[in-house]
Amino acid sequence: MTTQQLVEQIKAKKSFLCIGLDVDLTKIPTHLLDAEDPIFEFNKAIIDATHHLCVSYKPNTAFYEAYGLKGWKSLEKTIQYLNTNYPEIYTIADAKRGDIGNTSTMYAKAFLEDLAFDSVTVAPYMGKDSVEPFLAFKDKQTIMLALTSNKGAFDFQTLDVNGQELYKQVLETSKSWENSENLMYVVGATKAEYFKEIRKIVPNSFLLVPGVGAQGGNLQDVCKYGMSDNVGLLINSSRGIIYAGNDEDFAKAAAVKAKELQEQMEKILINRL
Amino acid sequence: MTTQQLVEQIKAKKSFLCIGLDVDLTKIPTHLLDAEDPIFEFNKAIIDATHHLCVSYKPNTAFYEAYGLKGWKSLEKTIQYLNTNYPEIYTIADAKRGDIGNTSTMYAKAFLEDLAFDSVTVAPYMGKDSVEPFLAFKDKQTIMLALTSNKGAFDFQTLDVNGQELYKQVLETSKSWENSENLMYVVGATKAEYFKEIRKIVPNSFLLVPGVGAQGGNLQDVCKYGMSDNVGLLINSSRGIIYAGNDEDFAKAAAVKAKELQEQMEKILINRL
Repeated sequence: MTTQQLVEQIKAKKSFLCIGLDVDLTKIPTHLLDAEDPIFEFNKAIIDATHHLCVSYKPNTAFYEAYGLKGWKSLEKTIQYLNTNYPEIYTIADAKRGDIGNTSTMYAKAFLEDLAFDSVTVAPYMGKDSVEPFLAFKDKQTIMLALTSNKGAFDFQTLDVNGQELYKQVLETSKSWENSENLMYVVGATKAEYFKEIRKIVPNSFLLVPGVGAQGGNLQDVCKYGMSDNVGLLINSSRGIIYAGNDEDFAKAAAVKAKELQEQMEKILINRL
Repeated sequence: MTTQQLVEQIKAKKSFLCIGLDVDLTKIPTHLLDAEDPIFEFNKAIIDATHHLCVSYKPNTAFYEAYGLKGWKSLEKTIQYLNTNYPEIYTIADAKRGDIGNTSTMYAKAFLEDLAFDSVTVAPYMGKDSVEPFLAFKDKQTIMLALTSNKGAFDFQTLDVNGQELYKQVLETSKSWENSENLMYVVGATKAEYFKEIRKIVPNSFLLVPGVGAQGGNLQDVCKYGMSDNVGLLINSSRGIIYAGNDEDFAKAAAVKAKELQEQMEKILINRL
């Protein structure tokens, strides 16, 4: 999918919500545990109930790998279900991969070609040749960690490098990489004031923003400082939506929470666009 | 496995060789492609032929994920084969993972508990709370990227932070993390002179060293500057060993290459220990 198609979907749905499919078997309604594939059944119900309220789903691969072969199968079924039934949806494999060139190519193939996600998250530490193999995929995007939403973000990402924080150097440097037009960035919502600075470096790039909701970020502040002329934001919520309910009506409860966020987004979009 | 047990194995085998099981179906002998699980058959033959010459195997997860469900199955079978038949071998899941706390816990369970690897590689960019969930596993080790062997290492890892390179800051900071005694570090062999500086910061930690062989690093130089009183080095070779031959005798060819490295290591150990 091109970013232009993503923008069109945002405008049509009046939403820039991404729902994180981080499925933990200890947290899903117990009646699903009898199903052959509880994780997929959970995802399917959530997707069917919320797809009109969001533009993107983001399974975090950790939650699938934790269940081994069965988990990997659930991930495959989930992305196939999305690509078959909701082709307009923008899909993100939240994998945070990164390795030397030939190895990154293997990861890129796995997520962008075989599983056919629209995008995949990567870590920047190994530099240019660890990310460019992902960027080589046409009409696919690579979402690189810049400033994350956890406490550990302050261990290295905000250290001073040549007079500016490391994450700004990461943003700056990555702009010179081949096919950098396919880059998006992860920027945590817990530091909304940082978006102003970030937009000076990457005025038009899409930013994937975790940390609204469960991690405490504020939607209005993020949009105030982070929204670009082309929206340029995907706001992710995982636990706050998918675990909103814990009984037979869990998917309806998730839709109520997603609708709340979508309505806030609609108001913001009306004022901005 | 404790690092002490690893050291005992090194002394017994006179080897600190780790063999990277980075299996690419386009590079293995064609006669294996008819097998039900060519990747596992390849690994099994390599392991049976080389286990007495090395102390560790390191499958890189990218090469398994690239084949989807089948690949994950091959990875499971490989680690089970190692743990069942060669329990003395030190196993490394080269996964380079890292995520927010609860998500890192899922990865840690996947690799250290369910697949039962002895260790897993992680990326440092997200800081303390992305790594500590791995460190919490008793008698398991977490191998964090410090200075990698690729060109992109110079994009961020060697940037000046508070008067020293970022990778040194990563080493320094990580020493204060909970259970940091379970940390090892990835340090590329292409910059052997850097080991001297690194040993000032982490004098006793084990270093996993890729880049000897295919990537051009020199074993003698690495040992000269990098060996600790307790050896403290695992030298990895992947392509140079596993693709040494390409016919029915591929495993024997791999053993010849592994033996060459083991003999060099034996000489170094005799002079040092």
